[in-house]
Amino acid sequence: MVQRVTVLGGGVIGLSTAWRVAASGRAVTVFDDGCRTAGSWVAGGMLAPVTESWPGEEELLDLGSRSLARWPAFAAELGDVGLRTEGTLAVALDSADLGVLDQLAGHLRGLGREADRVTGRELRALEPGLGPRVRGGLSVPGDLAVDNRRLLSALRKACAAHDVRFEPRRATPSTVDADVVVIAAGAWSGALHPALAPVIRPVKGEIVRLAGRRGALPPPTRTIRAHVEGRAVYLVPKDDGLVVGATQYESGFDEAVTVGGVRDLLGDAEAVLPGIAEYELVESAAGFRAGSPDNLPVIGWLEPGVLAATGHHRNGLLLAPITAEKVLTLLREGGTP
Amino acid sequence: MVQRVTVLGGGVIGLSTAWRVAASGRAVTVFDDGCRTAGSWVAGGMLAPVTESWPGEEELLDLGSRSLARWPAFAAELGDVGLRTEGTLAVALDSADLGVLDQLAGHLRGLGREADRVTGRELRALEPGLGPRVRGGLSVPGDLAVDNRRLLSALRKACAAHDVRFEPRRATPSTVDADVVVIAAGAWSGALHPALAPVIRPVKGEIVRLAGRRGALPPPTRTIRAHVEGRAVYLVPKDDGLVVGATQYESGFDEAVTVGGVRDLLGDAEAVLPGIAEYELVESAAGFRAGSPDNLPVIGWLEPGVLAATGHHRNGLLLAPITAEKVLTLLREGGTP
Repeated sequence: MVQRVTVLGGGVIGLSTAWRVAASGRAVTVFDDGCRTAGSWVAGGMLAPVTESWPGEEELLDLGSRSLARWPAFAAELGDVGLRTEGTLAVALDSADLGVLDQLAGHLRGLGREADRVTGRELRALEPGLGPRVRGGLSVPGDLAVDNRRLLSALRKACAAHDVRFEPRRATPSTVDADVVVIAAGAWSGALHPALAPVIRPVKGEIVRLAGRRGALPPPTRTIRAHVEGRAVYLVPKDDGLVVGATQYESGFDEAVTVGGVRDLLGDAEAVLPGIAEYELVESAAGFRAGSPDNLPVIGWLEPGVLAATGHHRNGLLLAPITAEKVLTLLREGGTP
Repeated sequence: MVQRVTVLGGGVIGLSTAWRVAASGRAVTVFDDGCRTAGSWVAGGMLAPVTESWPGEEELLDLGSRSLARWPAFAAELGDVGLRTEGTLAVALDSADLGVLDQLAGHLRGLGREADRVTGRELRALEPGLGPRVRGGLSVPGDLAVDNRRLLSALRKACAAHDVRFEPRRATPSTVDADVVVIAAGAWSGALHPALAPVIRPVKGEIVRLAGRRGALPPPTRTIRAHVEGRAVYLVPKDDGLVVGATQYESGFDEAVTVGGVRDLLGDAEAVLPGIAEYELVESAAGFRAGSPDNLPVIGWLEPGVLAATGHHRNGLLLAPITAEKVLTLLREGGTP
């Protein structure tokens, strides 16, 4: 008999898992209420294990790098998901920021990874829109980006092609009829199993989406990351503009887009790319990352018949291919918590 | 036979006119495509002839004051339109701004109008949310505000109660069947008659709407106006928050809400009321005022059977009662251009 698998959650982790599991011949149902504050809907779309890395998080860097290696093939199977392979620049606006980047570069070199220090002049040669305050940075050609919304849409189509059934509502493990339930509900996973309740917390983030306009400077070709007055900001190019993100708050499921958050995002992004003052502000949104205590995802059996695939925090898009693979392996092996 | 009047435009001028004309026993049709960039939909809602006044615009101050005198009765007939009678404070953040306010106060006193100079301390006693950068200002208790969107909705109901017929599309004077056509299409009026084409131009403005949040400072009770680094900003309290406006550009019918515009509105509003950093950014919008060469409205016959009621620029809400009255008088008198 075909194994019946129900996935709770239709973000990037839920959909990637559903797609891979359905393709393996299992009967899959996805419960998803189309929530617009899901992390992968609101996200910027970075696939950036290196520029996200930090001393002490070597395991995450390793996991992210292995997932990133799977991304080109993963994307190719899905069709046009706006995978951008131009790489990432991490830039600094003052000497304190430069110091932080030097520390990161040293850490990366110690791990045998490349991160090229580039001058302000070299950066402006690569991306002419960078403003005069940009002093220097790192070039990380391997850190990529994807159009997250196009990706989610492509994943739903790929699921449908494998006869995944969609239920447009939320459910809990005890209310669904399945051989295995996969909890992939991102920030909301904590409410779905007692073992996850103390582990998964929502980490609020705000972004703005900007569209280029005739007469304004074109968007950069690479993802730009920066620290401005101690705040991290990223600018991820899209076909018609940019996503600028992301604030970070520990404030539960507060969905409000705040004045202070948008003010910081716009101001910090302008400090990096002054020309965006002329861009159109198309959307401002808040979403929730699935925070975990060690910033690593929780992928494994919680009890017989209940799997977790959550806690991806800032790395859900990046870790989707390897997470789906891991869930499929766990399903094949059966096994226990 | 009952006179058949068609009004082109369903903003505050078109609706006020349609209501008054229909109440006089005429058969009225309003053409309105529900455009969300109409000036009176996007507006902040100030009814503020005094704090809007400037040397050289005495005629506008006089017209505005006479219309403001009609506002309490006008509003009372319409029901609850959120008329706020707490008055307006014009505040200054530096000595240059204070100088501008002193100039305005002197001008007003010369016209026999009151405008009380108040210190920063007195201002903060009136509105505790005002920030430390506020140095002084003017108190103008007579300048009021209205909830413009609630007003538009009440006007449509008042029209319907007098059997005004609504056509949800645009039209031109030559394509409607009526005894008299009233052109009240705001910024779009220039395209509706050759005599208006050289006179009426769109003046783009952007606003943001903010909502108060639990734990954040409550909104002010009075309308606050300020100049911040030479830019005018106003904060108009609403039941659940504030409207902050308004940028001003001569850029045709460009509907984009720009990064630079929102950055200025949020930054300038925070300079005046720092507590709004915690507020929710609910909406950002762009709209078009109907600019005229002398900032005065154009109300009169353009040719037999065609009346204009447009060109109200920043003062459409304020001037609605007196404009509707004037149109009714013109209809009664008949008359020629």
